[in-house]
Amino acid sequence: MNNFEFYNPTKLIFGKGQIQKLEEHLPQKAKILLIYGGGSIKKNGVYYAVKENLSKHSFVEFSGIEPNPQYDTLMKAVSVIKSEKIDFVLAIGGGSVIDGTKFIVAAANFEGDAWDILEKRAPIKSAIPFGTILTLPATGSEMNSFAVISKGNEKLAFGHPLVYPKFSILDPEITFSLSNRQLGNGLVDAFVHTIEQYLTNNINTPIQDRFAEGILLTLIAESDKVMKQENDYDSRANLMLSATMALNGLIGIGVNQDWATHMIGHELTALYGIDHARSLAVILPSLLRIQKDTKKDKLLQFASRVWNFSSTDSDTMIESAIQMTEAFFENLGVPTKLRFYKISKQDFPKIISAVRKHIPVNLGENQDIDEAKLLQILEAAY
Amino acid sequence: MNNFEFYNPTKLIFGKGQIQKLEEHLPQKAKILLIYGGGSIKKNGVYYAVKENLSKHSFVEFSGIEPNPQYDTLMKAVSVIKSEKIDFVLAIGGGSVIDGTKFIVAAANFEGDAWDILEKRAPIKSAIPFGTILTLPATGSEMNSFAVISKGNEKLAFGHPLVYPKFSILDPEITFSLSNRQLGNGLVDAFVHTIEQYLTNNINTPIQDRFAEGILLTLIAESDKVMKQENDYDSRANLMLSATMALNGLIGIGVNQDWATHMIGHELTALYGIDHARSLAVILPSLLRIQKDTKKDKLLQFASRVWNFSSTDSDTMIESAIQMTEAFFENLGVPTKLRFYKISKQDFPKIISAVRKHIPVNLGENQDIDEAKLLQILEAAY
Repeated sequence: MNNFEFYNPTKLIFGKGQIQKLEEHLPQKAKILLIYGGGSIKKNGVYYAVKENLSKHSFVEFSGIEPNPQYDTLMKAVSVIKSEKIDFVLAIGGGSVIDGTKFIVAAANFEGDAWDILEKRAPIKSAIPFGTILTLPATGSEMNSFAVISKGNEKLAFGHPLVYPKFSILDPEITFSLSNRQLGNGLVDAFVHTIEQYLTNNINTPIQDRFAEGILLTLIAESDKVMKQENDYDSRANLMLSATMALNGLIGIGVNQDWATHMIGHELTALYGIDHARSLAVILPSLLRIQKDTKKDKLLQFASRVWNFSSTDSDTMIESAIQMTEAFFENLGVPTKLRFYKISKQDFPKIISAVRKHIPVNLGENQDIDEAKLLQILEAAY
Repeated sequence: MNNFEFYNPTKLIFGKGQIQKLEEHLPQKAKILLIYGGGSIKKNGVYYAVKENLSKHSFVEFSGIEPNPQYDTLMKAVSVIKSEKIDFVLAIGGGSVIDGTKFIVAAANFEGDAWDILEKRAPIKSAIPFGTILTLPATGSEMNSFAVISKGNEKLAFGHPLVYPKFSILDPEITFSLSNRQLGNGLVDAFVHTIEQYLTNNINTPIQDRFAEGILLTLIAESDKVMKQENDYDSRANLMLSATMALNGLIGIGVNQDWATHMIGHELTALYGIDHARSLAVILPSLLRIQKDTKKDKLLQFASRVWNFSSTDSDTMIESAIQMTEAFFENLGVPTKLRFYKISKQDFPKIISAVRKHIPVNLGENQDIDEAKLLQILEAAY
């Protein structure tokens, strides 16, 4: 096991009707900014439930955070925070709204050009405190300190302990209004987050492995009920908790982590507008094939413990586990091949350049994914 | 799944040599009180490592915290905090030192008679901040907000979010100096903590179940290497992380919890001085036998997933799982029968009275362990 530090002070408030306790968790007398996206919270009623439970606080609203939240939009929210003298922010939405809010609360207190937080990784010294009400189980942003922000077709990441949410309210019933596309994307996103921390080289970390396998097994086991839209509370609760645990830092302690699938996927989203989870589903299986030698121990463990597959031939084990993963994604309605998105192979150099521009070193847990391997992965993903 | 809130702000600092970073995690210019036990930290060198890494801080020392820390001893430390104007406390030791420190830091800021914190569960409003350096993986106290304090032969519990450690340093190499008795006790303690949250009635909580099973499987898998004293770093690291995860609140979210084994065990420790873990090893198997009907689903799952046992007969499955658990404890040198401790059956009414005095309601996740069942459990444990 590697040395590590783990710190996660977000209070998770989980279950039916927990939104009714919203005001208990807000600082008294704070002026609140509600931040949300395109208005789906008005359709599913969350917006009205929040307002009902905010009677003791004054608040203003900022809506219109896009999927892949845009820097220019977020800076408008920063202006509102300053002009309205906001004390606390409440993000209501999925990963994009929460990621965007993390940047907003950091930028609001930043001295200098807030773009430097993203481009130069300028350290932040304070942030407006914020909480979240999660509407879409997928990204884990509700219980971590990371965010991915877009400017035009650039995606840039930042993270800081000051942008952990103070609390996140997770009511599984809120997910009953989600579409199959959103649910399928959420399942894939949580699955790939887990894999990025689990399918790396084996350094003897059985607790982290078992926890990761627990998340993967639960996502697989609950996926049918979730996708049949039966409004089964328990399956939604188990999905929601899985997605949070997949990226709150817990399963990543003391292990090597990959994240190459995410780095490549981000460029597919930035260049072609492919949903984040869908970009991951295209890249992951091919990356596992190309990297199967260094990931061999864990791929065999994955085949056996997660897919319950056994064979005396290790190549068969590994290829079967990857195929079962592809079938899982496809069954969720999420394509696993790049050709589905009608991207030309002639674009591969452009994609590779974009990856290298943002991450100028080799990718992967062993830093061995260079431009040649990136091309191999894209070819295999076609 | 039940509704829940989860909040755990302790920073875990894990791995070889992490004690060298001690000063980074202490408030600058704080005057520190070092609290420790009977001096084993001088034998294993931790004491000297701490002093080497405290050059920028002034500090005073308080030693002599007993196993099952005594109220009167702890109140002497409270006096030192007040007279020396201490800003931050550093607990160096196992569960007793850390539990004792939680009470000390709460009592130091308490207005009124600090005994009320224990006896009347009087709410605390502030506490001196503290960190820990863990020397014995077992209780999980290094990453939770609970403590058990003794006064004479009474054991009383308290807990409050203000007594989460600010940080805990866990260096697996520190455990190389532990005796087999301490290691065996630690393995049993962590195992039973996990069981108390896992083997309850089934309310569809697959993530929590898988995490609990991961801890149990890891404790079992690492026990041989740990007990052979091979100073294998990875096995100690996996043990240490398991014990912390067993009682940091994570596997207890949204599930029903039992804790009857602990409530009965506490009285065996208070009345007869039996080591905490050893009291649990005596009670748990009998309690599982008496409660096998309400715990049936989970006992079958435990037999299958943790002990890898299969049978078409559910009674055989359950009894085998309990016997394998007993054999696991016995192999660690931890007895599983009350008669080993030469306690007379005529003492059973006294033990039951002590349990009822401290917890005047029925025990167990279904509150169905009354005096008659307590007697059945003790008889079965004889």
